[in-house]
Amino acid sequence: MKAVAVRKGETNPTIVEKPRPDPDAGEALVRTLRVGVDGTDHEVLSGAHGGFPDGEDHLVLGHEAVGVVADPNGTDLTEGEVVVPTVRRAPDGGNEYFERGEPDMAPEGEYHERGIVGAHGFMAEYFTSPAESLVSIPPELADLGFLVEPVSITEKALEHAYAARSAFDWQPESAMVLGNGSLGLLTLAMFEHTEGFDRTYCLGRRDRPDPTIDIIEDLGATYVDSRRTPVDEVADAHEGMDLVYEATGYAKHAYQTIDALAPNGVGALLGVPESWEFEIDGGKLHNEFVLHNKALVGSVNSHVGHFESAVETLAALPDPFLDDLVTGVYGLDDLDRAFDDDDTTIKTAVELAAYEKR
Amino acid sequence: MKAVAVRKGETNPTIVEKPRPDPDAGEALVRTLRVGVDGTDHEVLSGAHGGFPDGEDHLVLGHEAVGVVADPNGTDLTEGEVVVPTVRRAPDGGNEYFERGEPDMAPEGEYHERGIVGAHGFMAEYFTSPAESLVSIPPELADLGFLVEPVSITEKALEHAYAARSAFDWQPESAMVLGNGSLGLLTLAMFEHTEGFDRTYCLGRRDRPDPTIDIIEDLGATYVDSRRTPVDEVADAHEGMDLVYEATGYAKHAYQTIDALAPNGVGALLGVPESWEFEIDGGKLHNEFVLHNKALVGSVNSHVGHFESAVETLAALPDPFLDDLVTGVYGLDDLDRAFDDDDTTIKTAVELAAYEKR
Repeated sequence: MKAVAVRKGETNPTIVEKPRPDPDAGEALVRTLRVGVDGTDHEVLSGAHGGFPDGEDHLVLGHEAVGVVADPNGTDLTEGEVVVPTVRRAPDGGNEYFERGEPDMAPEGEYHERGIVGAHGFMAEYFTSPAESLVSIPPELADLGFLVEPVSITEKALEHAYAARSAFDWQPESAMVLGNGSLGLLTLAMFEHTEGFDRTYCLGRRDRPDPTIDIIEDLGATYVDSRRTPVDEVADAHEGMDLVYEATGYAKHAYQTIDALAPNGVGALLGVPESWEFEIDGGKLHNEFVLHNKALVGSVNSHVGHFESAVETLAALPDPFLDDLVTGVYGLDDLDRAFDDDDTTIKTAVELAAYEKR
Repeated sequence: MKAVAVRKGETNPTIVEKPRPDPDAGEALVRTLRVGVDGTDHEVLSGAHGGFPDGEDHLVLGHEAVGVVADPNGTDLTEGEVVVPTVRRAPDGGNEYFERGEPDMAPEGEYHERGIVGAHGFMAEYFTSPAESLVSIPPELADLGFLVEPVSITEKALEHAYAARSAFDWQPESAMVLGNGSLGLLTLAMFEHTEGFDRTYCLGRRDRPDPTIDIIEDLGATYVDSRRTPVDEVADAHEGMDLVYEATGYAKHAYQTIDALAPNGVGALLGVPESWEFEIDGGKLHNEFVLHNKALVGSVNSHVGHFESAVETLAALPDPFLDDLVTGVYGLDDLDRAFDDDDTTIKTAVELAAYEKR
């Protein structure tokens, strides 16, 4: 079968031939439909993030997949069922985090991430997975099923952020996304359509005309140009935010978020920047944290429960938004375009097989 | 009656004569027993924090009080009942935070704090208070009732910190207090005796022999000298902490806490530093926040529920610890010693009247 991989020492995706995998006991064989491409894939390609499986000279890419069960292999799944795989897998021997169904809380070294670190991804004609790591989705979501994983990332981050405000009567009205990439825009759509915020904002640094600004404004949100209004001036220029969702990976945003928050607000941090030393007014920010009961919560990955919530969320997002978000779905013969990262590309996927409803 | 106040332009406490206050409707008159002195009082004296009531040339000090109801004035309280007052009062007109019983979540400008900002404190022979801001305590706690307010501060901070970890199966074992002042030591005693941590640590910067180090070790905790082991080296030198409680007001500690935390840990920030610019590796800390699901929660003040929890907590703390913590209780004729802030002073209180059980 064909798979899309990155070879050691290379930074571009390549099509490789691999044997079709055989499912082990407890695993199902899945025929892959589509696999989304995101910023993490670009980081994996560049070598900034992730790592190869032990003893392998290549890593099959892809962690945002949707497929159809080809062989249930004795599991509770049925042939033809549309499924989305979760990303983390237990290293040899397993550990308590996986046992309690919270692989997303496992610390570094206690997990592999398919398509990212230590385990091949899903961007192949077939993949195998333990049945308990496959989340069933309605057939009508098959084409967009590759968005379940990124939505699940936000489901988890919001669950943790809301939990951090659960000790009092929090009545949030305003929310801001930092970053107008595909994850940022998906999150903004959730703020508008499933999370019930009254006023939403999205930060970017693009000039009009721009397709992401169009999406932001079509959603009813306010576009904030970070070149004119830095994050730490947002509260003065617009309003203090009850919730800030950082999806830029720009480290200064993590600290400027403290200023952008309204009293009793919470910031969810999602970015994974590299080392970068800079100056902050650490005293002022510390003071602000305390006197206004603010919170910051880091969040990575997601578990089956978040995937299940994400399926419901995805079904509730408006079709016109999703049409605008997905700027291209490409076959293996057009791989370069799937991995394009220019200003007209928002969200792409690689199609391994078309979904045929039975 | 006599009261202890700071006059505008002065930085020392003075005894002033004031008329005994008359309770308004819904208020009780309380005969003050004891009023604790803490770091906030010293900040108020120095002018670094707080502010005078409108139109007044002095501020009566004291926000950690215990007293006896002298005149219930038609409220549900009874004469002779031992009570502790909460600190925040609604400014004219009130607001939603007070209406829902969460004055601790009110932003700046939406509250007065008795003895700190905008309203006279409790360090007087009598004070009045709305009955709903008086928490009844058992008579046997009358002598130590001035510790209920500081314990309530930690009750709130821990409630918020635990809430921030409530979205997953958090099983904390290790906890560290930054700061060996009276609030830090009270919190350390809670970690050992009411919060159930397996391993506890307390950071200070004192040489032995020192009474706070003795208390730390008598509690069964490990003393960490910040001059040898900075906060961001604690995880390597000892272990990553599931919980860090910052009570130093030293702004760098807020950020070093991110490094000191174990994966999935939470830091509670309590200090109120002034502006101070310094360099951090903001990229590394941001990365650490996200990849290890860490959280920081700022916390200020406390509400009636936290005072009620604090009464139970205080009753559960061992007497020898409390004896060591309270280094002196002084009458009005010995005021200077109550406000001493040297290395042999841990926690003091001013006694306005001795408790006489009826």
